[in-house]
Amino acid sequence: MAIKEGLRPGGRSARVQESVHTAVRELLQEQERASITVPQIATRAGVTPSTIYRRWGDLAALLADVALARLRPDSEPADTGSLRGDLQAWAEQYLDEMSSEPGRNMMRDVQCSQTPGYCVTILGGQLQAILDRYADSAGPLPSVEHLINLLAAPTVFRVLFSTAPLSVEELHQLIELALAPSLPNPSS
Amino acid sequence: MAIKEGLRPGGRSARVQESVHTAVRELLQEQERASITVPQIATRAGVTPSTIYRRWGDLAALLADVALARLRPDSEPADTGSLRGDLQAWAEQYLDEMSSEPGRNMMRDVQCSQTPGYCVTILGGQLQAILDRYADSAGPLPSVEHLINLLAAPTVFRVLFSTAPLSVEELHQLIELALAPSLPNPSS
Repeated sequence: MAIKEGLRPGGRSARVQESVHTAVRELLQEQERASITVPQIATRAGVTPSTIYRRWGDLAALLADVALARLRPDSEPADTGSLRGDLQAWAEQYLDEMSSEPGRNMMRDVQCSQTPGYCVTILGGQLQAILDRYADSAGPLPSVEHLINLLAAPTVFRVLFSTAPLSVEELHQLIELALAPSLPNPSS
Repeated sequence: MAIKEGLRPGGRSARVQESVHTAVRELLQEQERASITVPQIATRAGVTPSTIYRRWGDLAALLADVALARLRPDSEPADTGSLRGDLQAWAEQYLDEMSSEPGRNMMRDVQCSQTPGYCVTILGGQLQAILDRYADSAGPLPSVEHLINLLAAPTVFRVLFSTAPLSVEELHQLIELALAPSLPNPSS
Protein backbone atom coordinates (compact mmCIF):
# COMPACT_ATOMS: atom_id res chain seq x y z
CA MET A 1 0.00 0.00 0.00
CA ALA A 2 2.64 2.47 1.10
CA ILE A 3 4.61 2.45 -2.14
CA LYS A 4 1.52 3.21 -4.20
CA GLU A 5 0.52 6.20 -2.11
CA GLY A 6 2.20 8.68 -4.43
CA LEU A 7 0.07 7.50 -7.33
CA ARG A 8 -3.26 7.93 -5.58
CA PRO A 9 -5.45 10.57 -7.20
CA GLY A 10 -5.41 13.65 -4.99
CA GLY A 11 -2.29 12.35 -3.26
CA ARG A 12 -0.26 15.53 -3.67
CA SER A 13 -3.15 17.71 -2.63
CA ALA A 14 -3.73 15.62 0.48
CA ARG A 15 -0.02 15.77 1.35
CA VAL A 16 0.03 19.58 1.01
CA GLN A 17 -2.98 19.82 3.28
CA GLU A 18 -1.45 17.48 5.84
CA SER A 19 1.90 19.29 5.96
CA VAL A 20 0.29 22.74 6.18
CA HIS A 21 -2.07 21.58 8.93
CA THR A 22 0.83 20.01 10.81
CA ALA A 23 2.85 23.23 10.49
CA VAL A 24 -0.05 25.27 11.92
CA ARG A 25 -0.57 22.85 14.82
CA GLU A 26 3.15 22.94 15.67
CA LEU A 27 3.34 26.75 15.50
CA LEU A 28 0.23 27.09 17.67
CA GLN A 29 2.04 25.12 20.38
CA GLU A 30 5.21 27.18 20.09
CA GLN A 31 3.97 30.76 19.92
CA GLU A 32 1.07 33.15 20.39
CA ARG A 33 -1.80 32.63 17.98
CA ALA A 34 -1.77 36.32 16.99
CA SER A 35 1.91 36.27 15.97
CA ILE A 36 1.65 33.45 13.40
CA THR A 37 2.04 34.47 9.75
CA VAL A 38 1.37 32.78 6.42
CA PRO A 39 5.05 32.96 5.24
CA GLN A 40 6.09 31.30 8.49
CA ILE A 41 3.61 28.47 7.98
CA ALA A 42 4.69 28.09 4.35
CA THR A 43 8.38 27.76 5.30
CA ARG A 44 7.61 25.17 7.95
CA ALA A 45 5.36 23.20 5.60
CA GLY A 46 7.74 23.39 2.64
CA VAL A 47 5.25 25.10 0.32
CA THR A 48 5.05 28.63 -1.08
CA PRO A 49 2.84 31.25 0.57
CA SER A 50 0.88 31.52 -2.67
CA THR A 51 -0.06 27.85 -2.37
CA ILE A 52 -1.63 28.68 0.97
CA TYR A 53 -3.40 31.81 -0.28
CA ARG A 54 -4.69 29.96 -3.34
CA ARG A 55 -6.04 27.10 -1.31
CA TRP A 56 -7.35 28.78 1.86
CA GLY A 57 -7.79 32.43 0.91
CA ASP A 58 -6.41 33.91 4.12
CA LEU A 59 -4.85 33.05 7.46
CA ALA A 60 -8.13 33.15 9.35
CA ALA A 61 -9.67 30.64 6.95
CA LEU A 62 -6.64 28.35 7.33
CA LEU A 63 -6.79 28.53 11.14
CA ALA A 64 -10.50 27.78 10.95
CA ASP A 65 -9.86 24.80 8.66
CA VAL A 66 -7.27 23.39 11.06
CA ALA A 67 -9.62 23.90 14.00
CA LEU A 68 -12.49 22.28 12.13
CA ALA A 69 -10.31 19.33 11.08
CA ARG A 70 -9.41 18.77 14.70
CA LEU A 71 -13.03 18.71 15.77
CA ARG A 72 -14.52 17.03 12.71
CA PRO A 73 -15.29 13.49 13.78
CA ASP A 74 -13.46 10.88 11.71
CA SER A 75 -16.31 8.45 12.10
CA GLU A 76 -20.02 8.49 11.43
CA PRO A 77 -22.29 9.75 14.24
CA ALA A 78 -23.05 6.98 16.75
CA ASP A 79 -25.79 4.57 15.66
CA THR A 80 -27.89 3.72 18.70
CA GLY A 81 -30.82 2.16 16.87
CA SER A 82 -33.28 5.05 17.31
CA LEU A 83 -33.48 8.59 15.96
CA ARG A 84 -33.92 9.99 19.48
CA GLY A 85 -30.88 8.06 20.72
CA ASP A 86 -28.72 9.09 17.77
CA LEU A 87 -29.66 12.75 18.23
CA GLN A 88 -28.96 12.59 21.95
CA ALA A 89 -25.54 11.02 21.37
CA TRP A 90 -24.69 13.56 18.67
CA ALA A 91 -25.96 16.59 20.61
CA GLU A 92 -24.21 15.62 23.83
CA GLN A 93 -20.90 15.18 22.01
CA TYR A 94 -21.39 18.52 20.24
CA LEU A 95 -22.12 20.24 23.56
CA ASP A 96 -18.92 18.74 25.03
CA GLU A 97 -16.82 19.84 22.07
CA MET A 98 -18.17 23.39 21.88
CA SER A 99 -17.82 23.97 25.63
CA SER A 100 -14.11 23.05 25.46
CA GLU A 101 -11.28 25.51 24.90
CA PRO A 102 -10.52 24.14 21.37
CA GLY A 103 -14.23 24.45 20.61
CA ARG A 104 -14.31 28.12 21.63
CA ASN A 105 -11.16 28.86 19.62
CA MET A 106 -12.66 27.13 16.62
CA MET A 107 -15.82 29.23 16.81
CA ARG A 108 -13.71 32.39 16.98
CA ASP A 109 -11.59 31.33 14.00
CA VAL A 110 -14.61 30.30 11.96
CA GLN A 111 -16.27 33.67 12.49
CA CYS A 112 -13.15 35.41 11.17
CA SER A 113 -12.91 33.17 8.12
CA GLN A 114 -14.33 34.01 4.74
CA THR A 115 -16.49 30.91 4.74
CA PRO A 116 -18.28 30.71 8.09
CA GLY A 117 -21.03 28.78 6.32
CA TYR A 118 -18.65 25.82 6.10
CA CYS A 119 -19.34 25.15 9.76
CA VAL A 120 -23.04 24.63 9.11
CA THR A 121 -22.19 22.45 6.10
CA ILE A 122 -20.28 20.04 8.34
CA LEU A 123 -23.00 20.02 11.01
CA GLY A 124 -25.65 19.54 8.36
CA GLY A 125 -23.79 16.58 6.88
CA GLN A 126 -23.61 14.82 10.24
CA LEU A 127 -27.30 15.41 10.96
CA GLN A 128 -28.31 14.30 7.46
CA ALA A 129 -26.34 11.06 7.95
CA ILE A 130 -28.44 10.40 11.06
CA LEU A 131 -31.73 11.25 9.34
CA ASP A 132 -30.87 9.00 6.37
CA ARG A 133 -30.87 5.99 8.70
CA TYR A 134 -34.55 6.56 9.45
CA ALA A 135 -35.76 7.56 5.99
CA ASP A 136 -38.15 4.58 5.91
CA SER A 137 -39.77 5.29 9.27
CA ALA A 138 -43.50 5.97 9.45
CA GLY A 139 -43.79 9.60 10.55
CA PRO A 140 -42.24 12.68 8.93
CA LEU A 141 -38.67 13.45 9.99
CA PRO A 142 -37.50 16.88 11.16
CA SER A 143 -35.44 18.82 8.61
CA VAL A 144 -31.71 19.37 9.03
CA GLU A 145 -32.32 23.13 9.35
CA HIS A 146 -34.82 22.53 12.14
CA LEU A 147 -32.29 20.40 14.02
CA ILE A 148 -29.58 23.04 13.58
CA ASN A 149 -31.90 25.77 14.88
CA LEU A 150 -33.06 23.73 17.87
CA LEU A 151 -29.93 21.82 18.86
CA ALA A 152 -26.75 23.41 17.49
CA ALA A 153 -27.83 27.06 17.85
CA PRO A 154 -28.71 27.04 21.59
CA THR A 155 -25.56 25.00 22.34
CA VAL A 156 -23.29 27.52 20.63
CA PHE A 157 -25.20 30.65 21.72
CA ARG A 158 -25.05 29.67 25.39
CA VAL A 159 -21.31 28.94 25.21
CA LEU A 160 -20.56 32.25 23.51
CA PHE A 161 -22.95 34.62 25.26
CA SER A 162 -24.23 33.22 28.51
CA THR A 163 -22.66 32.57 31.88
CA ALA A 164 -23.55 28.87 31.83
CA PRO A 165 -23.63 26.34 28.99
CA LEU A 166 -26.78 24.42 28.17
CA SER A 167 -27.48 21.61 30.64
CA VAL A 168 -27.98 18.03 29.39
CA GLU A 169 -31.59 18.25 30.65
CA GLU A 170 -32.26 21.33 28.51
CA LEU A 171 -30.62 19.59 25.57
CA HIS A 172 -32.93 16.58 25.97
CA GLN A 173 -35.99 18.87 26.16
CA LEU A 174 -34.89 20.56 22.95
CA ILE A 175 -34.54 17.15 21.26
CA GLU A 176 -38.13 16.31 22.29
CA LEU A 177 -39.26 19.61 20.83
CA ALA A 178 -37.37 18.91 17.61
CA LEU A 179 -38.99 15.46 17.34
CA ALA A 180 -42.51 16.67 18.11
CA PRO A 181 -44.98 16.57 15.21
CA SER A 182 -45.43 19.93 13.47
CA LEU A 183 -47.72 22.31 15.21
CA PRO A 184 -51.11 23.41 13.94
CA ASN A 185 -51.49 26.96 12.71
CA PRO A 186 -51.62 29.67 15.37
CA SER A 187 -55.02 29.80 17.05
CA SER A 188 -54.16 33.42 17.98
CA MET B 1 -34.29 70.47 35.52
CA ALA B 2 -31.02 71.22 33.79
CA ILE B 3 -29.44 73.17 36.65
CA LYS B 4 -30.13 70.39 39.10
CA GLU B 5 -28.45 67.77 36.95
CA GLY B 6 -25.13 68.03 38.77
CA LEU B 7 -26.83 67.19 42.06
CA ARG B 8 -28.50 64.04 40.84
CA PRO B 9 -27.18 60.89 42.52
CA GLY B 10 -24.96 59.15 40.02
CA GLY B 11 -24.70 62.34 37.98
CA ARG B 12 -20.92 62.33 37.76
CA SER B 13 -20.84 58.64 36.98
CA ALA B 14 -23.38 59.10 34.20
CA ARG B 15 -21.37 62.01 32.75
CA VAL B 16 -18.18 59.93 32.73
CA GLN B 17 -20.01 57.14 30.95
CA GLU B 18 -21.48 59.53 28.42
CA SER B 19 -18.19 61.25 27.60
CA VAL B 20 -16.28 57.96 27.30
CA HIS B 21 -18.98 56.46 25.07
CA THR B 22 -18.96 59.59 22.92
CA ALA B 23 -15.16 59.44 22.62
CA VAL B 24 -15.34 55.81 21.49
CA ARG B 25 -18.06 56.52 18.93
CA GLU B 26 -16.08 59.45 17.50
CA LEU B 27 -12.83 57.48 17.31
CA LEU B 28 -14.60 54.56 15.62
CA GLN B 29 -15.67 56.94 12.86
CA GLU B 30 -12.19 58.42 12.47
CA GLN B 31 -9.92 55.38 12.50
CA GLU B 32 -9.60 51.62 12.28
CA ARG B 33 -11.21 49.74 15.15
CA ALA B 34 -8.00 47.76 15.76
CA SER B 35 -5.87 50.91 16.22
CA ILE B 36 -7.92 52.47 19.03
CA THR B 37 -6.27 52.52 22.48
CA VAL B 38 -7.50 53.17 26.01
CA PRO B 39 -5.15 56.19 26.58
CA GLN B 40 -6.46 57.72 23.37
CA ILE B 41 -10.05 57.32 24.51
CA ALA B 42 -9.19 58.69 27.95
CA THR B 43 -7.59 61.83 26.46
CA ARG B 44 -10.57 62.46 24.21
CA ALA B 45 -13.04 61.92 27.06
CA GLY B 46 -11.10 64.00 29.59
CA VAL B 47 -10.66 61.17 32.09
CA THR B 48 -7.64 59.12 33.18
CA PRO B 49 -6.96 55.69 31.67
CA SER B 50 -7.29 54.17 35.14
CA THR B 51 -10.87 55.46 35.32
CA ILE B 52 -11.61 53.44 32.20
CA TYR B 53 -9.80 50.31 33.41
CA ARG B 54 -11.53 50.54 36.79
CA ARG B 55 -14.94 50.89 35.26
CA TRP B 56 -14.80 48.63 32.21
CA GLY B 57 -11.89 46.28 32.88
CA ASP B 58 -10.45 46.31 29.37
CA LEU B 59 -10.83 47.82 25.93
CA ALA B 60 -12.89 44.91 24.57
CA ALA B 61 -15.39 45.27 27.40
CA LEU B 62 -15.66 49.02 26.76
CA LEU B 63 -16.23 48.50 23.02
CA ALA B 64 -18.84 45.88 23.86
CA ASP B 65 -20.57 48.27 26.28
CA VAL B 66 -20.69 51.01 23.64
CA ALA B 67 -22.04 48.54 21.08
CA LEU B 68 -24.66 47.25 23.51
CA ALA B 69 -25.71 50.79 24.45
CA ARG B 70 -26.25 51.58 20.79
CA LEU B 71 -28.45 48.54 20.30
CA ARG B 72 -30.19 48.51 23.67
CA PRO B 73 -33.68 49.78 22.98
CA ASP B 74 -34.52 52.93 24.95
CA SER B 75 -38.14 51.91 25.17
CA GLU B 76 -40.04 48.89 26.40
CA PRO B 77 -40.70 46.11 23.87
CA ALA B 78 -43.75 46.86 21.71
CA ASP B 79 -47.07 46.05 23.40
CA THR B 80 -49.37 44.55 20.77
CA GLY B 81 -51.99 43.17 23.16
CA SER B 82 -51.03 39.48 22.84
CA LEU B 83 -48.03 37.42 23.92
CA ARG B 84 -47.64 36.00 20.41
CA GLY B 85 -47.76 39.48 18.89
CA ASP B 86 -45.26 40.91 21.39
CA LEU B 87 -42.84 38.04 20.78
CA GLN B 88 -43.16 38.42 17.03
CA ALA B 89 -42.47 42.17 17.21
CA TRP B 90 -39.52 41.65 19.55
CA ALA B 91 -38.01 38.74 17.59
CA GLU B 92 -38.35 40.48 14.22
CA GLN B 93 -36.61 43.59 15.56
CA TYR B 94 -33.87 41.45 17.12
CA LEU B 95 -33.34 39.62 13.82
CA ASP B 96 -33.06 42.96 12.01
CA GLU B 97 -30.55 44.32 14.51
CA MET B 98 -28.34 41.22 14.64
CA SER B 99 -28.24 40.87 10.84
CA SER B 100 -26.95 44.46 10.51
CA GLU B 101 -23.28 45.46 10.45
CA PRO B 102 -23.44 47.14 13.91
CA GLY B 103 -25.12 43.98 15.21
CA ARG B 104 -22.32 41.75 13.91
CA ASN B 105 -19.66 44.08 15.35
CA MET B 106 -21.44 44.05 18.67
CA MET B 107 -21.49 40.27 18.80
CA ARG B 108 -17.76 40.20 18.05
CA ASP B 109 -17.00 42.77 20.75
CA VAL B 110 -19.20 41.05 23.30
CA GLN B 111 -17.42 37.72 22.76
CA CYS B 112 -14.08 39.43 23.46
CA SER B 113 -15.34 41.12 26.61
CA GLN B 114 -14.91 39.73 30.08
CA THR B 115 -18.65 39.74 30.68
CA PRO B 116 -20.31 38.10 27.66
CA GLY B 117 -23.14 37.06 29.97
CA TYR B 118 -24.24 40.71 30.07
CA CYS B 119 -25.72 40.23 26.62
CA VAL B 120 -28.09 37.51 27.84
CA THR B 121 -28.96 39.67 30.86
CA ILE B 122 -30.23 42.43 28.56
CA LEU B 123 -32.15 40.01 26.33
CA GLY B 124 -33.61 38.29 29.37
CA GLY B 125 -34.79 41.63 30.79
CA GLN B 126 -36.64 42.48 27.59
CA LEU B 127 -38.30 39.05 27.38
CA GLN B 128 -39.23 39.13 31.07
CA ALA B 129 -40.89 42.52 30.55
CA ILE B 130 -43.04 40.94 27.85
CA LEU B 131 -43.90 37.89 29.97
CA ASP B 132 -44.82 40.09 32.95
CA ARG B 133 -47.65 41.61 30.90
CA TYR B 134 -49.31 38.18 30.65
CA ALA B 135 -48.63 36.89 34.16
CA ASP B 136 -52.40 36.63 34.83
CA SER B 137 -53.21 34.63 31.71
CA ALA B 138 -54.72 31.16 32.00
CA GLY B 139 -52.05 28.78 30.68
CA PRO B 140 -48.44 28.46 31.81
CA LEU B 141 -45.98 30.88 30.19
CA PRO B 142 -42.70 29.82 28.59
CA SER B 143 -39.60 30.63 30.63
CA VAL B 144 -37.16 33.36 29.62
CA GLU B 145 -34.44 30.71 29.11
CA HIS B 146 -36.71 28.77 26.78
CA LEU B 147 -37.37 31.91 24.72
CA ILE B 148 -33.65 32.68 24.54
CA ASN B 149 -32.86 29.13 23.38
CA LEU B 150 -35.62 29.09 20.78
CA LEU B 151 -35.62 32.68 19.48
CA ALA B 152 -32.36 34.50 20.23
CA ALA B 153 -30.02 31.53 19.76
CA PRO B 154 -31.06 30.52 16.21
CA THR B 155 -31.13 34.19 15.16
CA VAL B 156 -27.56 34.78 16.30
CA PHE B 157 -26.20 31.37 15.26
CA ARG B 158 -27.45 31.74 11.72
CA VAL B 159 -25.99 35.25 11.39
CA LEU B 160 -22.59 34.14 12.67
CA PHE B 161 -22.22 30.70 11.12
CA SER B 162 -24.58 30.18 8.22
CA THR B 163 -24.75 31.56 4.72
CA ALA B 164 -28.29 32.92 5.20
CA PRO B 165 -29.97 34.51 8.21
CA LEU B 166 -33.16 33.06 9.64
CA SER B 167 -36.22 33.87 7.54
CA VAL B 168 -39.24 35.57 9.11
CA GLU B 169 -41.23 32.38 8.39
CA GLU B 170 -38.75 30.26 10.35
CA LEU B 171 -38.85 32.82 13.15
CA HIS B 172 -42.64 32.60 13.33
CA GLN B 173 -42.47 28.78 13.43
CA LEU B 174 -40.01 28.96 16.29
CA ILE B 175 -42.36 31.31 18.17
CA GLU B 176 -45.19 28.76 17.77
CA LEU B 177 -42.87 26.08 19.12
CA ALA B 178 -41.93 28.28 22.08
CA LEU B 179 -45.61 28.92 22.84
CA ALA B 180 -46.66 25.27 22.50
CA PRO B 181 -47.68 23.51 25.72
CA SER B 182 -44.92 21.39 27.24
CA LEU B 183 -44.45 18.03 25.64
CA PRO B 184 -45.22 14.71 27.30
CA ASN B 185 -42.32 12.50 28.28
CA PRO B 186 -40.55 10.65 25.49
CA SER B 187 -42.53 7.59 24.36
CA SER B 188 -39.26 6.32 22.83
